[in-house]
Amino acid sequence: MLLAVDAGGTSTRALVATVDGRCLGTAVAGAGNPRAAGAERALRSLSTASREALAAAGVPARRVRVAVVAMAGSEDGVRTADLARALGVAGERVHRVSDLLAMFCSGALEPAGAALVAGTGSVAARVEGRRPVRLVGGSGWLLGDAGSGFWTGRRVARAAVAALDGSGPPTALAGALVAELGLDGDPSGDPNGDANGDPSDEPPRAGLRPQVLVRVLEALHGGDPLRLARLAPLAFRLAPRDPLAADLVRSVHDALARLVDAVAGPGPLVAGGGLWRHGVLGSPLPLSQPLAQALEGVQLRSADDGLLGAAVLAVRALGLRDEAVAAAAQRLRDTASTPPAAAGTPTTGGDR
Amino acid sequence: MLLAVDAGGTSTRALVATVDGRCLGTAVAGAGNPRAAGAERALRSLSTASREALAAAGVPARRVRVAVVAMAGSEDGVRTADLARALGVAGERVHRVSDLLAMFCSGALEPAGAALVAGTGSVAARVEGRRPVRLVGGSGWLLGDAGSGFWTGRRVARAAVAALDGSGPPTALAGALVAELGLDGDPSGDPNGDANGDPSDEPPRAGLRPQVLVRVLEALHGGDPLRLARLAPLAFRLAPRDPLAADLVRSVHDALARLVDAVAGPGPLVAGGGLWRHGVLGSPLPLSQPLAQALEGVQLRSADDGLLGAAVLAVRALGLRDEAVAAAAQRLRDTASTPPAAAGTPTTGGDR
Repeated sequence: MLLAVDAGGTSTRALVATVDGRCLGTAVAGAGNPRAAGAERALRSLSTASREALAAAGVPARRVRVAVVAMAGSEDGVRTADLARALGVAGERVHRVSDLLAMFCSGALEPAGAALVAGTGSVAARVEGRRPVRLVGGSGWLLGDAGSGFWTGRRVARAAVAALDGSGPPTALAGALVAELGLDGDPSGDPNGDANGDPSDEPPRAGLRPQVLVRVLEALHGGDPLRLARLAPLAFRLAPRDPLAADLVRSVHDALARLVDAVAGPGPLVAGGGLWRHGVLGSPLPLSQPLAQALEGVQLRSADDGLLGAAVLAVRALGLRDEAVAAAAQRLRDTASTPPAAAGTPTTGGDR
Repeated sequence: MLLAVDAGGTSTRALVATVDGRCLGTAVAGAGNPRAAGAERALRSLSTASREALAAAGVPARRVRVAVVAMAGSEDGVRTADLARALGVAGERVHRVSDLLAMFCSGALEPAGAALVAGTGSVAARVEGRRPVRLVGGSGWLLGDAGSGFWTGRRVARAAVAALDGSGPPTALAGALVAELGLDGDPSGDPNGDANGDPSDEPPRAGLRPQVLVRVLEALHGGDPLRLARLAPLAFRLAPRDPLAADLVRSVHDALARLVDAVAGPGPLVAGGGLWRHGVLGSPLPLSQPLAQALEGVQLRSADDGLLGAAVLAVRALGLRDEAVAAAAQRLRDTASTPPAAAGTPTTGGDR
């Protein structure tokens, strides 16, 4: 038996299969990325997902000959021994691989190519000889992740805020954001009414800023900045009729083109993530010229996550020949109904 | 006696003067902006600064006829009664004013004009009839504050990170950032060496990303995002020889031009903040065309903070005539040596 786990920032997926690729059970649990969720919570998610997949398959953990865990990052204090404990599988049977390699293997059996994830974050990898050799992007929401769901959603919010306060050009994104936040037609009172009534004091601040802006800022401030990723779809939705939204979508395309260019080379490009699927491919907008150019002549394939790839890597770890691996991969594809990604950032549900 | 307090995001300054403008004592305490520091800490800073200024002046709190507290925001749960308690002054003698109005009054006696602060954050206000009537910008680091020290410093960091990982064009900002963080010539070992040694696993990740990039990300991640404001000076320093830094400086100018335009009208523009003083005015770079245009024909004045303006507003609150207020303002200017702003973001030490 093999156990494959794909630990993402939003959900953790696990799959149990026979070593020739017959899927016997799958399960989903919560966030499994140690950097996003913390090591303890990530390990708990791993444990839950694998235990439930094993239960669904009716397979005890001791029968697992090989387990592959696909996980982003390595600077996070989770070691293979921790993973083995969480899975209930002996340490020497557990392999940890990069989530991007697993994603690549979900869409490609070739030894070389590239992977791109554009979800809440954005990152790309070059794969050579079945190993990731270069990682580009993925530096996080504060310092990197250009072209990601967060990057796009934050720009939607900033453009709307600037339009509402008069420091930026008008844009339909403002009204769309107000509606998205459920603030249109909000008849409630003045949120600024805290002047002390002394006639020599300033008037209440309600007049200093548009009230709707104050409410938007209240709604968006605080909490996890990554929540802004859920605003990314507004850009794609409005781009056909709003010049600023169209510019923003073009800049998303251009940023992703830079990632694709940075990992270009022989072999297919396996791409996925909510922003890629729904925003870039799922919209009627033409690709920007740099993105069209970056994809020219590229064998483009899709993958939702790294679960199938982690299972294929598990088969390969058993030392089977390429033809046997290919047959197992095909069987996995035929028998595994990938469990749906858990909610979280529903519309840009990329799992990084 | 009058008491003036300017409560900023980095420091709180207090001044005690006679009602005709003779400064008797000043003091500085820590952060006094309730949104940045929390209400409790802000009130403690107010209390400390005012108590020490009163002690320096040898004046008991009960002799204060009028106290003016300049403070940003109003949606923060601090009420005039709280301020009165913190100052030890009867509530009916305490007036709270916008920090931007105080800043304006530090540089102008005119009833109308505009104020601009470009420090860690950025914000502008239109003043009419000695009251702020419109606030533009200042929506915080996540959603606004274009052209601020944080905005600039974050762009410096992002450009450097993209250059280091190959997803962006090369720029001298990368080397400058590495040097600024003290990471140049760092000979220490591989920060990524946590592979488990199993030959079927991936090689250690050191090869996947440039080691210097991993170190830069480690140094910049975590903690308060606003710390990135200290990187803003790199843009101004490198702009004369690096095209990307020059573009960034132009975009700072353009963003501030939009703020100036949004509060344009009769009367002087009182401007200040570390980025404005050291970055925009203190650099040999020409103003961008939009900023030059926005400032054309504008009476530009400087103010470091709102302390002097808060004192002038205190004099005015006593109902004196304009000539008496002007005389008191001149006397304040002559006798008050504004206490230096506390450290915090030393090179873009704007206090918002």
